[in-house]
Amino acid sequence: MIEETLAAIVPPDEAAIRDARALQARLTKPPGSLGALEDLSVRLAGLAGTCPPPLPAPAAVAIFAADHGVHARGVSPWPQEVTAQMVANFLAGGAVVNAFAAQTGATVTVVDVGVAADLPTAPGLQDRKIARGTADLSAGPAMTADQARAALEAGIEVARGLVADGARCLVTGDMGIANTTASAALIAAYTGRPAEQVTGLGTGIDPATHARKIEIVRDALGRLPASAGPLEILAEVGGLEHAALAGFILGGAAQRVPVVLDGVIAGAAALAAAALAPGVVGACVAGHRSAEPGHSAALAHLGLEPLVDLGLRLGEGTGAVLALPLVQSAVRVLHEVATFDSAGVTGKDGES
Amino acid sequence: MIEETLAAIVPPDEAAIRDARALQARLTKPPGSLGALEDLSVRLAGLAGTCPPPLPAPAAVAIFAADHGVHARGVSPWPQEVTAQMVANFLAGGAVVNAFAAQTGATVTVVDVGVAADLPTAPGLQDRKIARGTADLSAGPAMTADQARAALEAGIEVARGLVADGARCLVTGDMGIANTTASAALIAAYTGRPAEQVTGLGTGIDPATHARKIEIVRDALGRLPASAGPLEILAEVGGLEHAALAGFILGGAAQRVPVVLDGVIAGAAALAAAALAPGVVGACVAGHRSAEPGHSAALAHLGLEPLVDLGLRLGEGTGAVLALPLVQSAVRVLHEVATFDSAGVTGKDGES
Repeated sequence: MIEETLAAIVPPDEAAIRDARALQARLTKPPGSLGALEDLSVRLAGLAGTCPPPLPAPAAVAIFAADHGVHARGVSPWPQEVTAQMVANFLAGGAVVNAFAAQTGATVTVVDVGVAADLPTAPGLQDRKIARGTADLSAGPAMTADQARAALEAGIEVARGLVADGARCLVTGDMGIANTTASAALIAAYTGRPAEQVTGLGTGIDPATHARKIEIVRDALGRLPASAGPLEILAEVGGLEHAALAGFILGGAAQRVPVVLDGVIAGAAALAAAALAPGVVGACVAGHRSAEPGHSAALAHLGLEPLVDLGLRLGEGTGAVLALPLVQSAVRVLHEVATFDSAGVTGKDGES
Repeated sequence: MIEETLAAIVPPDEAAIRDARALQARLTKPPGSLGALEDLSVRLAGLAGTCPPPLPAPAAVAIFAADHGVHARGVSPWPQEVTAQMVANFLAGGAVVNAFAAQTGATVTVVDVGVAADLPTAPGLQDRKIARGTADLSAGPAMTADQARAALEAGIEVARGLVADGARCLVTGDMGIANTTASAALIAAYTGRPAEQVTGLGTGIDPATHARKIEIVRDALGRLPASAGPLEILAEVGGLEHAALAGFILGGAAQRVPVVLDGVIAGAAALAAAALAPGVVGACVAGHRSAEPGHSAALAHLGLEPLVDLGLRLGEGTGAVLALPLVQSAVRVLHEVATFDSAGVTGKDGES
């Protein structure tokens, strides 16, 4: 399934890109006056292979939840059981991502790929548990190669299922206490940056914990052979939700459906996906810039500019969901705005 | 009506602000993790005088349209008749602001306060024409004091009418070929910055036109006595839509309804409003940062940080409408997100 998905990721369609650029120039507005949203609309035309591209709606948020063995090293002030508790909160509609999704009309699906607890079945929850959390990445590989592949496949399946159910835009979400540690390790490994540049304060830690977190990331990287391939890196220092998110992003790209990325966890997963298939970036929209330093490093490596930059550091998909109406508005312009000709509006310098 | 409106603008309610801060701290998310949106939700509680504040929905965009005598000086490459043509485009639903408003569920009302053409009556168009455009601000006062007051009152009436019709969030829009010249003059006058710092390229002009535009702004400012009051400045170098927008902003604030500001034209109008009633800023939300340099100067003077920064330079209200779901999402958090207690989620450091 992984190989089939990677093979389905095609380069942007140049004809659709030309058509979108030409259409933007005829619409009743000064050329270029929509800034980054014009470029985004053109990119999404290239992804879809048609102009205008389909409206990226309805949108579906998938929150991949998993636990992390490295939590035992004290990298987070939050108890591990908060992962399962927050899954229950998502399913009850009580988390911030639920409020944001309600505002923008997106659906929320929770996918258990590795929560270290038995979760009761519930509407909106997909049980795709691969393990009860990863092993401690500070002591050895976080996942086996088989686990990493299974998580990738779970993510691909979730993307396929949501698109089959009608989603025309996928949105990444995540939950996993201690997952900024694994994210930092993945970002360092895929971008080549040193641990101290990409390891941040997560949801809020003191300087001593921060120093320990950096040391853990540095040590784990030191274990990786220089020849490590994308999957090997992912298994060694990643989380089950990172692997599943990478599959989810690849699965969206293979179906030519845009994937709006949330913050540092999604950024780390997108680096894994791009290491497997560089063309995947054409389907990625950076929803926001997280306050985590590793996120900016990931975005720079991917060549993505975020749409929203408001100092969010929550995760769950919140930053991506906030950006969703901007993505939808950008595409809507190509569908609904009149041209100078059709509206009888005189052009710049009196051209008609 | 103006004096009554100014008197109705009250300082933020400190008890509601305290309640909102305390509620944010109890919600199931790390404290502060929503960044600027937490502060925004707290500000809007202070404006409403209650926590949670009402959801800022439904939202109503009012596009104030007017022409400018200074257009005759060649400050814009666009013919003056484009103002009236774009009004027709707004009413037909064919402009970018219509597409964005459709995406976010906002209504669009066009208010003619000074278009230099006879406009046919149409649903969605309010005829409040005060003059067929301003006089040329490079040759003398753009408006009489009576015209400026009448435009302010028109804006107040529009704000009152939209709120009476159910709007719980007002959004500024504008249309007027050459209105970035008047905006630059207003911003320079209210902030004390030199003309060359606040005069930009508008919707796209060449360097020679830009130099002429700066000279016009500088000359007009030179005519203003040092003792000029807020209304005198507005009449001397402003536009009818600027005066109406200032009234609209004041009218929203007087009703304790948030007003989402678009770009440089709204920023100039907000400076006029704040010069008349400094407390008006408590009702203002900066929707976006325009590419126009004068806009950043206006926002800095007002002490407002924009929500969206994507290089837009279109006007119409587009940047404000894009930000609307962010404003609504920020408030929705206070209404819908569970607390640690109610959701049974363990707090940071294991606190429960």
